[in-house]
Amino acid sequence: MVNETQHTCSASSSSRSDGGSSSGSESSKDNSRCSTPVLDADRHERLREKMRRRQDAGDKWFSLEFFPPRTANAAVNLISRFDRMGAGGPLFIDVTWHPAGDPGSDKETSSMIIANTAVNYCGLETILHMTCCNQTKDDITGHLQKAKRLGLKNIMALRGDPAGEEWEEEVDGFNYAVDLVKHIRNEFDDYFDICVAGYPKGHPEAESYEADLRHLKEKVFAGADFIITQLFFRPETFLKFMKDCQAIGITCPIIPGIFPIQGYHSLRQLVKLSKLEVPQEIKDVIEPIKDNDAAIRNYGVELAVSMCRELLDSGMVHGLHFYTLNREVATTEVLKRLGLWKEDPRRPLPWAVSAHPKRRVEDVRPIFWASRPKSYIYRTQEWDDFPNGRWGNSSSPAFGELKDYYLFYLKSKSPREELLKMWGEELTGEESVFEVFTCYITGEPNRNGYKVTCMPWNDDPLATETNLLKDQLEKVNRRGILTINSQPNINGKPSTDPIVGWGPSGGYVFQKAYLEFFTSSEIATALLKVLKKYELRVNYHIVNVKGQNITNAPDLQPNAVTWGIFPGREIIQPTVVDPVSFLSWKDEAFALWIEQWAKLYEEESPSRMIIQYIHDNYYLVNLVDNDFPLENCLWQVVEDTFELLN
Amino acid sequence: MVNETQHTCSASSSSRSDGGSSSGSESSKDNSRCSTPVLDADRHERLREKMRRRQDAGDKWFSLEFFPPRTANAAVNLISRFDRMGAGGPLFIDVTWHPAGDPGSDKETSSMIIANTAVNYCGLETILHMTCCNQTKDDITGHLQKAKRLGLKNIMALRGDPAGEEWEEEVDGFNYAVDLVKHIRNEFDDYFDICVAGYPKGHPEAESYEADLRHLKEKVFAGADFIITQLFFRPETFLKFMKDCQAIGITCPIIPGIFPIQGYHSLRQLVKLSKLEVPQEIKDVIEPIKDNDAAIRNYGVELAVSMCRELLDSGMVHGLHFYTLNREVATTEVLKRLGLWKEDPRRPLPWAVSAHPKRRVEDVRPIFWASRPKSYIYRTQEWDDFPNGRWGNSSSPAFGELKDYYLFYLKSKSPREELLKMWGEELTGEESVFEVFTCYITGEPNRNGYKVTCMPWNDDPLATETNLLKDQLEKVNRRGILTINSQPNINGKPSTDPIVGWGPSGGYVFQKAYLEFFTSSEIATALLKVLKKYELRVNYHIVNVKGQNITNAPDLQPNAVTWGIFPGREIIQPTVVDPVSFLSWKDEAFALWIEQWAKLYEEESPSRMIIQYIHDNYYLVNLVDNDFPLENCLWQVVEDTFELLN
Repeated sequence: MVNETQHTCSASSSSRSDGGSSSGSESSKDNSRCSTPVLDADRHERLREKMRRRQDAGDKWFSLEFFPPRTANAAVNLISRFDRMGAGGPLFIDVTWHPAGDPGSDKETSSMIIANTAVNYCGLETILHMTCCNQTKDDITGHLQKAKRLGLKNIMALRGDPAGEEWEEEVDGFNYAVDLVKHIRNEFDDYFDICVAGYPKGHPEAESYEADLRHLKEKVFAGADFIITQLFFRPETFLKFMKDCQAIGITCPIIPGIFPIQGYHSLRQLVKLSKLEVPQEIKDVIEPIKDNDAAIRNYGVELAVSMCRELLDSGMVHGLHFYTLNREVATTEVLKRLGLWKEDPRRPLPWAVSAHPKRRVEDVRPIFWASRPKSYIYRTQEWDDFPNGRWGNSSSPAFGELKDYYLFYLKSKSPREELLKMWGEELTGEESVFEVFTCYITGEPNRNGYKVTCMPWNDDPLATETNLLKDQLEKVNRRGILTINSQPNINGKPSTDPIVGWGPSGGYVFQKAYLEFFTSSEIATALLKVLKKYELRVNYHIVNVKGQNITNAPDLQPNAVTWGIFPGREIIQPTVVDPVSFLSWKDEAFALWIEQWAKLYEEESPSRMIIQYIHDNYYLVNLVDNDFPLENCLWQVVEDTFELLN
Repeated sequence: MVNETQHTCSASSSSRSDGGSSSGSESSKDNSRCSTPVLDADRHERLREKMRRRQDAGDKWFSLEFFPPRTANAAVNLISRFDRMGAGGPLFIDVTWHPAGDPGSDKETSSMIIANTAVNYCGLETILHMTCCNQTKDDITGHLQKAKRLGLKNIMALRGDPAGEEWEEEVDGFNYAVDLVKHIRNEFDDYFDICVAGYPKGHPEAESYEADLRHLKEKVFAGADFIITQLFFRPETFLKFMKDCQAIGITCPIIPGIFPIQGYHSLRQLVKLSKLEVPQEIKDVIEPIKDNDAAIRNYGVELAVSMCRELLDSGMVHGLHFYTLNREVATTEVLKRLGLWKEDPRRPLPWAVSAHPKRRVEDVRPIFWASRPKSYIYRTQEWDDFPNGRWGNSSSPAFGELKDYYLFYLKSKSPREELLKMWGEELTGEESVFEVFTCYITGEPNRNGYKVTCMPWNDDPLATETNLLKDQLEKVNRRGILTINSQPNINGKPSTDPIVGWGPSGGYVFQKAYLEFFTSSEIATALLKVLKKYELRVNYHIVNVKGQNITNAPDLQPNAVTWGIFPGREIIQPTVVDPVSFLSWKDEAFALWIEQWAKLYEEESPSRMIIQYIHDNYYLVNLVDNDFPLENCLWQVVEDTFELLN
């Protein structure tokens, strides 16, 4: 909490700490307020600064390398993996550049789009690889411009493998990675952080190890910020390399590339590509167990852990870069055993922050997209300001339309067959829909024995926080209050609370109780009568698919429903019920009935018509209990509604 | 709390309430967020809209007329009167235009500057009178431009009295008020709300009562928004006039001008000016008591109350306009007896809101100027945005400089002799300064028997809220912790709390404990050592006059110290400890030692040198206890400091 610029001198000494603002008589002219409450320095730092800060703090870190997937389904899986592995706290991830896979295109599987997803939707600091040989300057500039536009901030500049056997240098072309580094610095100044590759054994095509070191120095002096090395098998290989680099004046961070051996074939393939030789002592272990994948992986984990320990113990290594081969288990295991895997339950905000540079000041979102954060980010990607016009004078562009609805990251992770098992091969009426909702809440298997682990509005199982409301939610869903979002009220719990806490420690978090659901017109009508009794306490919005909208929100103002009070900071109110964005959410919430559920069934089938009926006739309702210090009254509101109906 | 556009229809009906935002499928494109949490509609409405809203709500109101003072001292008194009478809840005040007093000038006593002060510093909706005869078009446009620039929004358009006896109409000149109305509408479009004068008995110079009514209609049709009448003595005079106006098609509000008789001479003078005749029944009462001011005033109050009652009871009158003659007692008495004086202890924000249109979104201020709000407004008058750059991207102009320090509204209301009695004719050392501070806190007389009712940093007696801390404050001031600002911690009191409440009802208000004081370098040094123990809990700034500044504020961020949670709204955090503005406040806080205190004494006198010494050597300290749910630890911090010193 202490300002880094603080001086520990006594008040009577002459030293000063004015933290960037000139003091003395000029101070009143120098007004440089921060434009937003900053929750973590992380959001405002460049990768190279983060690296430096962690190193200075003696804080070890790791990073993860992935390659782009081949199919759209694999992309959906990879993104879930990003979310899961992101939770362990990598400093960054990187995505390789596959020239054969149209890497700069808009395809769901391209390097560019996978990196874009990692940054924007998973909130991960990301390095995009880029190769330059056999490409025109214009192509490369185009890729870089696109990367910048998408919010990518870091490039790994590589030569890439020449296309044919016979490769000749082109005059003025991009023959080496150093040409790409120079080009990036020429065209984009200091915008990107640039990483280059180092070869602990020397590049296989270099004249000599020494010559390769000189090439590396050229790359660094041309503007690279740090180095990630090719994989190696012995820690002393890296440590020697690092000393040799330092000896010729390379002072930037050098990050060892760690390759946990995960299988016989992947090792062989890698060795072939990298032209590295596997040391005899490793071959001796692997060859006898080459058909036992588990045994090889266990050995690989052992080997990686011991090598990493040696590297870290040397005092020369601050971060470790893992070649994951897009797999999760081995790398995660190594990291856990090293104590580097830090699943931090504390969140800087109640929702996952996007790593896009223009979203770094984002600190408020409508509660509606709580379970669909990627959709929210997608639909607000054209916004230039966050918060968008709420407290400023900026113009307020609309939410993105639903026409690109089928974009893969808006789809469910589950395939159609699974969804049918969960949500019913055949629906017999609205009640069978109530049942699906109820099973999702309770976690009990449905009548066919399948657990309902996702819903069109929630692609993940029930959140821990929602679990606090489980019994109540079950009761109301059985009776046709089809809940899709809710939170309990909270009156000042410590910000470190494992379930509802977020933000820096030493603070207090608060919530107003919130409940959002679909319900029939009959129930909605009764509810509205009941709400008269709660007029001064409960704010509501009741809307149907046509946009008929009933509310008691004063002047269409947003209602803050989550906020936090922290030492030395402004109040942060990261979620609001915003009447204006609710009308955009409503379009999406209703569309999900059709897009994700109705379309599982044949056209004109009774099941499809039941969902269609609900879509056409139900109301979407949200309720906020403003009296957060008292017991949540929303359950009583619902109880009163059912009583009125009886 | 219910949105005015709310429909009470049932959810299944087809009516809708979308409050200005188009609903249905277009809704997602229409994003019109409010730019700031709006506390009261008042701040965003024009005067004519407020009048209409109050009338529609059946809500009676009053307004007050003042004339500009003759001397700077009288101006200071008048402004205090604005503050006191503003507390009763006038819909607006108006300031007359005195052509002889250089009314458009920058003099402290000009009509323009008095109206400016009422709007900007007292937060009162204000109408500036303006006369047009014997003035050039350019002069008038200049006055109007200046009025607009100063934030004035309403003009009373009058002809004014011709200068000489022989008055001839000028071709194309401003001969009548209607010419001024037309000019305002031509040159300033709809910017100003325009008021014109009505004469219940007809203008004395008009050919006839009927001709005068036609003139009035012309003024209204030229663009006037409402009418205030000349005074009259019988309610039926006004009611007949109002009916006659309506009969010829005048539909705008007509506000009766009420003149509570306050003395024999003022009545005679007014009658002479207005060429009105005093009814015989009034003369019969007044003549016998003409030398008994109190008796006349009592009679005047009786008469005004009974006339106002009759007017209000007629159902035709919604507001009453009072000619105060710059006096307080009679008008206040009438208003209290009518039940119109509504001293509302509830505040929309913890500080008084300025009525300047560009400050209407202002909802946060640094706590430092809590006792000097006029100075804060003055020093931020060049700001274009409120909050200034805090949550937006606007540039952040500096606080205004102190060079215009002597502006009358920054001065103390008390004359030099009184200040000397309170603060000491002669100081014998720092201890005598401690005593002055202590007496201010306790309210006990000083050693010479005088109560200390103001300090350079607090021109008013101790606030009720500060009184909560009185005992603790007394103790620390005695020992040289010279407090100038403080607030207790509050953990969620109802917004209607009579002492600490603010904002709409149904909310909860919170505070972090705050303490600001001057203290010696010795105490500051010890304090800094003690603060190490409280590092995670207490934020501090310690600065001396040279700007040597020690703080543990994270990244120079503002620390919210007052906030409120309200139904259906965003969080409001109206006061912050802002590290950047603190350095501007520091200049002012130190300068007040010299400007207000040291300069009471002869140059080189021991008293003056004591204050000068404190100014040069003391530190200004502020402390925030971030742990608002716990007991305030700041007293313990001070206690620990004294212990360390012993």
